[in-house]
Amino acid sequence: MLLRDLQLKFGGECVGEVSRSLTGVGSIERAVESEITFLANPKYRGALAGTLAGAVIVGVHERDATDKPRLVASNPYAYFAKVAQLFSPPAKYQPGIHPLAMVSPTARVAASASIAEFVSIGAGAIIGDNVRVGAGSIIGDNVSIGSGTQLIARVTVYADCRIGSRNLIHAGVVIGADGFGFAPDFTNGDGQWQKIPQTGAVVIGDDVEIGANTTIDRGAMDDTVIGNDVKLDNQIQVGHNCAIGDHTVISGCVGIAGSTKIGKRVMIGGKAGIIGHLTIGDDVIISAMTLVTKSILKPGTYTSGTPLMPHREWLKNAAHLRKLDLMATKIRLGTNKTD
Amino acid sequence: MLLRDLQLKFGGECVGEVSRSLTGVGSIERAVESEITFLANPKYRGALAGTLAGAVIVGVHERDATDKPRLVASNPYAYFAKVAQLFSPPAKYQPGIHPLAMVSPTARVAASASIAEFVSIGAGAIIGDNVRVGAGSIIGDNVSIGSGTQLIARVTVYADCRIGSRNLIHAGVVIGADGFGFAPDFTNGDGQWQKIPQTGAVVIGDDVEIGANTTIDRGAMDDTVIGNDVKLDNQIQVGHNCAIGDHTVISGCVGIAGSTKIGKRVMIGGKAGIIGHLTIGDDVIISAMTLVTKSILKPGTYTSGTPLMPHREWLKNAAHLRKLDLMATKIRLGTNKTD
Amino acid sequence: MLLRDLQLKFGGECVGEVSRSLTGVGSIERAVESEITFLANPKYRGALAGTLAGAVIVGVHERDATDKPRLVASNPYAYFAKVAQLFSPPAKYQPGIHPLAMVSPTARVAASASIAEFVSIGAGAIIGDNVRVGAGSIIGDNVSIGSGTQLIARVTVYADCRIGSRNLIHAGVVIGADGFGFAPDFTNGDGQWQKIPQTGAVVIGDDVEIGANTTIDRGAMDDTVIGNDVKLDNQIQVGHNCAIGDHTVISGCVGIAGSTKIGKRVMIGGKAGIIGHLTIGDDVIISAMTLVTKSILKPGTYTSGTPLMPHREWLKNAAHLRKLDLMATKIRLGTNKTD
Repeated sequence: MLLRDLQLKFGGECVGEVSRSLTGVGSIERAVESEITFLANPKYRGALAGTLAGAVIVGVHERDATDKPRLVASNPYAYFAKVAQLFSPPAKYQPGIHPLAMVSPTARVAASASIAEFVSIGAGAIIGDNVRVGAGSIIGDNVSIGSGTQLIARVTVYADCRIGSRNLIHAGVVIGADGFGFAPDFTNGDGQWQKIPQTGAVVIGDDVEIGANTTIDRGAMDDTVIGNDVKLDNQIQVGHNCAIGDHTVISGCVGIAGSTKIGKRVMIGGKAGIIGHLTIGDDVIISAMTLVTKSILKPGTYTSGTPLMPHREWLKNAAHLRKLDLMATKIRLGTNKTD
Repeated sequence: MLLRDLQLKFGGECVGEVSRSLTGVGSIERAVESEITFLANPKYRGALAGTLAGAVIVGVHERDATDKPRLVASNPYAYFAKVAQLFSPPAKYQPGIHPLAMVSPTARVAASASIAEFVSIGAGAIIGDNVRVGAGSIIGDNVSIGSGTQLIARVTVYADCRIGSRNLIHAGVVIGADGFGFAPDFTNGDGQWQKIPQTGAVVIGDDVEIGANTTIDRGAMDDTVIGNDVKLDNQIQVGHNCAIGDHTVISGCVGIAGSTKIGKRVMIGGKAGIIGHLTIGDDVIISAMTLVTKSILKPGTYTSGTPLMPHREWLKNAAHLRKLDLMATKIRLGTNKTD
Repeated sequence: MLLRDLQLKFGGECVGEVSRSLTGVGSIERAVESEITFLANPKYRGALAGTLAGAVIVGVHERDATDKPRLVASNPYAYFAKVAQLFSPPAKYQPGIHPLAMVSPTARVAASASIAEFVSIGAGAIIGDNVRVGAGSIIGDNVSIGSGTQLIARVTVYADCRIGSRNLIHAGVVIGADGFGFAPDFTNGDGQWQKIPQTGAVVIGDDVEIGANTTIDRGAMDDTVIGNDVKLDNQIQVGHNCAIGDHTVISGCVGIAGSTKIGKRVMIGGKAGIIGHLTIGDDVIISAMTLVTKSILKPGTYTSGTPLMPHREWLKNAAHLRKLDLMATKIRLGTNKTD
C-alpha cells in the first residue's frame, strides 16, 4: 500500500514522497519505518519529531509540523481509523454450519453465514448474509440477526430479539434476559414476590458494538431499544424498556435502570449509574461514576461525586458532611452557638 | 379467557361486563381492546381515561375511576402479575437428555428434567423433576438442583453447590467460583500471595431469581447462603460467606464483599456496594450507588453520595470538599483568620 | 497428617502433642477435633478458648495463648494458607482431549493437558503441560497458555493472547475482547463512529488468579499487560493498554479505563474506578468505590466518596453540597449577606 493509494481511497492532501510504501499503522512512539502514524492531539506535536514512522496523518494546522511524507486531513483521527481498518480487515469466516452446531430445522440461515461449533439456533430464527455466530453462542427462537453482524463467541440472545446489521457483539454478552420486575404480594409479613412476565423483546439497530459481558434486558411488555451506531463498552447493564439513541457511546461498567430513555450522541463515562424512568436528552455528557437521579434535558456535562483525597484528609473532611446542615445554620445565624 | 374466569381464579370484585373476553395483558398506554391492563399508582389515574384496554385491574380506591369492565383488588399490581403469569406461562421443554449433552454416568437426572445441547453435568450431580438445564450450562460434581428450577443458558455451577426449587437463573450466571482469599506471604519485598482454598459451597433456597452475568462465590470454609424468594438482578457480585435473607431484592450491579450478612426483605438499589463483615438488618433500604461501610441494624433508608450538578457548578463546589475541616474551624472560631 | 508432619513441611515451632492427627482445616468457630485452625488477628484471641479444633496455628506473640497442640509461626495466616492448600489440593484432571472438543490440527496441545468437552481451540494455539481447559471454553488462534494454568469453564480467550503458568481463571472470564476505541467522524450532524481496530493483545504473567466474569481488553496497538502474582476478583473490567504490576490485588467490580498503568503491590477496594491514562505507583491503596481521577505517585491510602447516612439526614446535608461555594464565600466575608 502506497501513501498515494490511501489518498486516492480516503481523500486529503498528500505531501512529500507519495510513493512511500506502508504495511500497517503504529502509535507515534512505537511505529516503525514501514508504518503510518497520526497526530490528532496538538499536545503530542513534540513527539512527532522523534517518531520512526514512515509517514504521518496530520490535521490541517499541523500540515507543516513534520517533514515526513504525510496525509493532511480535516479529521486526522477518523482518517487514521479508516486507514487502520484497511490494514486490519475483520476476520473472514468459512460459510456454513459446523457439524457440531445445533440449528433448528425451522431456522433460516443464509448460505453465506458462518455458524461455529457448539452454537445453538432456535426455531424460526433468521440469520442474515455473512453473519458470524461464534462458538458457544446460544440464539433463541425467532431471533433475527441482520447481515454482516458478528457474534464473537459465547453470546446469548433470548427468544424474539431482533439484531440489526453490521453489529459486533463480544463474548459473554446476554441480550434479552428478563427485566427485573416483581410485585410485592405480602400480607401480615407472609407472602412472596410475584414475577411480572417480561414479554417485550430487545431491538438493536445497525452498526452497534457491544462489549464483553454486557447485558441488555428485554422489555416488560414493550421493547428495549438500542439505536444505530450505538457503542457499548464491557460490563454495561441496560434495564428493561430503556431506549438508547443513535450514536450514543457508553463506557464500561455503566448501569441504566429500567424505562430510562437516552437521547442521541450522549456520552456516558465509566461506572456511571442512571436510575429508572428518566429522560436524558441529546448531546448530554455524564462524568465517570456519576449517579443520575433526575432527568437531564439540556446538553452539557453533568457530574456527581467527590474529589480524591489522601485517606487521612478524607476522614477529617468527610466527617463534616454529616453536619453540613448545622454548618449552614451557623453561618446563617452568624454564630457558633448552635453547637 | 373471560374476565369472570380471572375473578374465579384470583378473587376480587368483578364490575361490569363479566364475560369480556381477554387474550393478554398490556401497559395502560399500549394495551389493545382484547387486553387487560392495571392501575396501581394513582399518578396514572389520568391515563386511565385514554386506555384502549378492554378491561382494567384497579385498587379499591379506584373502583369507580373507570367505566370499563374491571377487577377490583386490594393489591392490583400483584393481581396483575398473577394474571400476566397466566397469559405467559413459563416455556415448556421436552423432557430428556440431548444427545450432545455430557452427563456423568453417576449423575441422577429426573426423567422429567430437560437437559439441552452442550450441557455438561458432573459426577454425583442430582437434577430434580422438571428442571431445565439450558444450552451451554456447566454443572459441577455433586451439585443438586431442586424441582422446577430453570437455568436458561450458559450457567456455570461449580462442584458441591446446592440450588433449591423453582429458581430461575439467567444466562452467564456463575455460582460457586472461588471466593477472593489470599494471605500475604512477603518477606523483605520478596514472596507472593498464598491462596486460601475455598472449600465451602453456595446454598440457594427456593423461588430465587438470579439475573444475567451475576456471580455468587463459594464460601472459604463455611457456605455462602441465599435465602428463599430472593431476587437478584443482573451483574451482581456476592462475595464468599455472605448470607442473604428471605425476600430480599437487589438491583443490578450491586457488589457485596465477603462475610456480610443481609437480613430479610432488604431492598438494595442499583450499583450500591457493601463492604465485608457487616450486618444489614431486616427491612433496610439502601439507595442506588450508596457505599455501606458499617453495619445497619435499624430499618429505614440509607444513602451516601452527592447530588448531580452541571459539571461547572460541581467543580466550584467540590473544590471546597477538600477544605471542609478548615471551613468548620473558621465557623467555630467565628473568624476567617485561619485562611 | 500429624502436627509434626506440618512442621517438617512448613517450619515453625511445634508445641504440645506433636503426633496429633489432623484431617483438615476449619474456622476458629466451626473447626472440629480432627481439624487445625489458626489465630492471625489478636482480636479473635478470646474465641480461641472456645474452639473445638484439635490444633492451632498461632503467631509468636500468641505462643502461649492456648494449651492446645500448636504450631508457632511468624506469619500464621500464610502458614495456615499453606496447610489448607495441603489438605485441599487442586483438582486433578484426566489428560487428553475430550471427543467433543474441537481442536485445530495446527494447535499444539501437551500430552499432559486436559481439554474438556465443548472446548474450541484455534489454529496455532499452544497449550502447555498440565493445563486444564474446562468445558465450554473458547481459545482463539495463536493463543498460548503456560504450564499448570487452569481455565475452569466457559472462559474465552481471543486470538494472539498469551497466558503464563499456574494461572487460575474462573468461569465467564473474557480475555482479549476489543478495547473501546472509536474516532468521531461526524460532519454537520451526519456521520458515524469509526472503529479503531484493536490489534494489540493481552499478555498475562504467572501465578495470576482471575475471578468470574472479569474482562480484560486487548490493546489498541500495543498490548495490555498483567504482571505476575496479580489477583483479580470477579467482574473487574481492565481497559485496553493497561498495565498491572506484580502482586497487585484488585477486589470485585473495579473498573480501570484504558492506558492506565498500575504499579506493584497496589491494593484496590471493591467497586473503585480509575479513569484512563493515569499512573498509580507501587504500594498505593485505593478505598472501596473511590474514583481515581488523577495519577497517584506516593504510597498511601486514597479515598473519595461520602459517608453513609440515614436518608433523611442525607437529604438535609446533601442539599448544601450545591451551595458549598456560596457557603465558603459567606465565611470569607464574615457575613450572611450574600444569601
